[in-house]
Amino acid sequence: MNNYSPRLSRLIEALRKLPGVGPKSAQRMAFHLLDRDRAAAEKLAAALGDALGGIGRCKTCRMFCEDEACRYCTPARRAGGQLCVVETPADLMALEAGTSYRGRYFVLMGRLSPLDGIGPAELGLSVLQDVLLDGDVEEMIVATNPTVEGEATAVYLARLLKPLGVKVTRIGMGVPVGSDLEFADEVTISKAMEGRREI
Amino acid sequence: MNNYSPRLSRLIEALRKLPGVGPKSAQRMAFHLLDRDRAAAEKLAAALGDALGGIGRCKTCRMFCEDEACRYCTPARRAGGQLCVVETPADLMALEAGTSYRGRYFVLMGRLSPLDGIGPAELGLSVLQDVLLDGDVEEMIVATNPTVEGEATAVYLARLLKPLGVKVTRIGMGVPVGSDLEFADEVTISKAMEGRREI
Repeated sequence: MNNYSPRLSRLIEALRKLPGVGPKSAQRMAFHLLDRDRAAAEKLAAALGDALGGIGRCKTCRMFCEDEACRYCTPARRAGGQLCVVETPADLMALEAGTSYRGRYFVLMGRLSPLDGIGPAELGLSVLQDVLLDGDVEEMIVATNPTVEGEATAVYLARLLKPLGVKVTRIGMGVPVGSDLEFADEVTISKAMEGRREI
Repeated sequence: MNNYSPRLSRLIEALRKLPGVGPKSAQRMAFHLLDRDRAAAEKLAAALGDALGGIGRCKTCRMFCEDEACRYCTPARRAGGQLCVVETPADLMALEAGTSYRGRYFVLMGRLSPLDGIGPAELGLSVLQDVLLDGDVEEMIVATNPTVEGEATAVYLARLLKPLGVKVTRIGMGVPVGSDLEFADEVTISKAMEGRREI
């Protein structure tokens, strides 16, 4: 179907590899970049090269990291004795922006999903075990998403790591603030009942 | 809000410049490229550089072109005396794939849209005028999209270029093949009645 000239075909193919981009969108993106915004294409090429060369992973928390020292693994953050396990860098950023939590993190870069070939090794759980064996961590807060897979991951983590003598907690689930009970789904509302607290 | 490290921020910003990509998608794309598919990121950077350096515009038909001679402006295509005006390279490809038309093209790279600042100059209408003044063209087929803006562009083109003594035709509009009259909208069905032909 694609009968474009070789360079244009290659560009469209490369854009299709982006998540959520199909053949039509890739085509639209290629035309947009070539026709209306060549400066953006140059910037994107430069940013990609720069990111590939300069962004690595922190050995301790698995967050993207471009300096020698990871900014989420500082001694000050270690001191608190808390470690928060999240699925993605975006979740880490959301917690940093929305909460006053300033402890350490561990980024799984995914969730357990055997059908997609994502098991304990892909999530770096041996690294997490080593961090916990180091002994600074008193509480591990499991902040994986409240989805079926996130929940399964949380249960797996608790079973695997509780034997190391660490307190394992799970973030609270219930009705989101500002919402209407009438429209909450059954699972959420039952979680809210379970998680009730004295006021 | 965005509190990522500098290289990651720059990559996310650059991805946001793609059409249809918002801040959340850009973030997801950046994480995907860095975490799961660095090879795709390398290919994309290379394809972008290659495309920017190697893909230009044909001076006659405004189609993307990466060789000396445009493959849609060959003498064989000139010989037919027909020129088809389309909005985008994708429309050109659709006509090439779906019809037996093998004449020349002229790609507007857009449609008249004064609110978006797209006027006759942006569509290269002076180039089109020069092509028609050259005298090889007997029929100009206006294949802009059957939308309000595409229709306005077609009317504008007809008024501008009929005085040059060229026959100006518009692609047929009506009910699409395989559809159901019952579900056709009023404008389409009235176009179908207007465009009826003896069988």
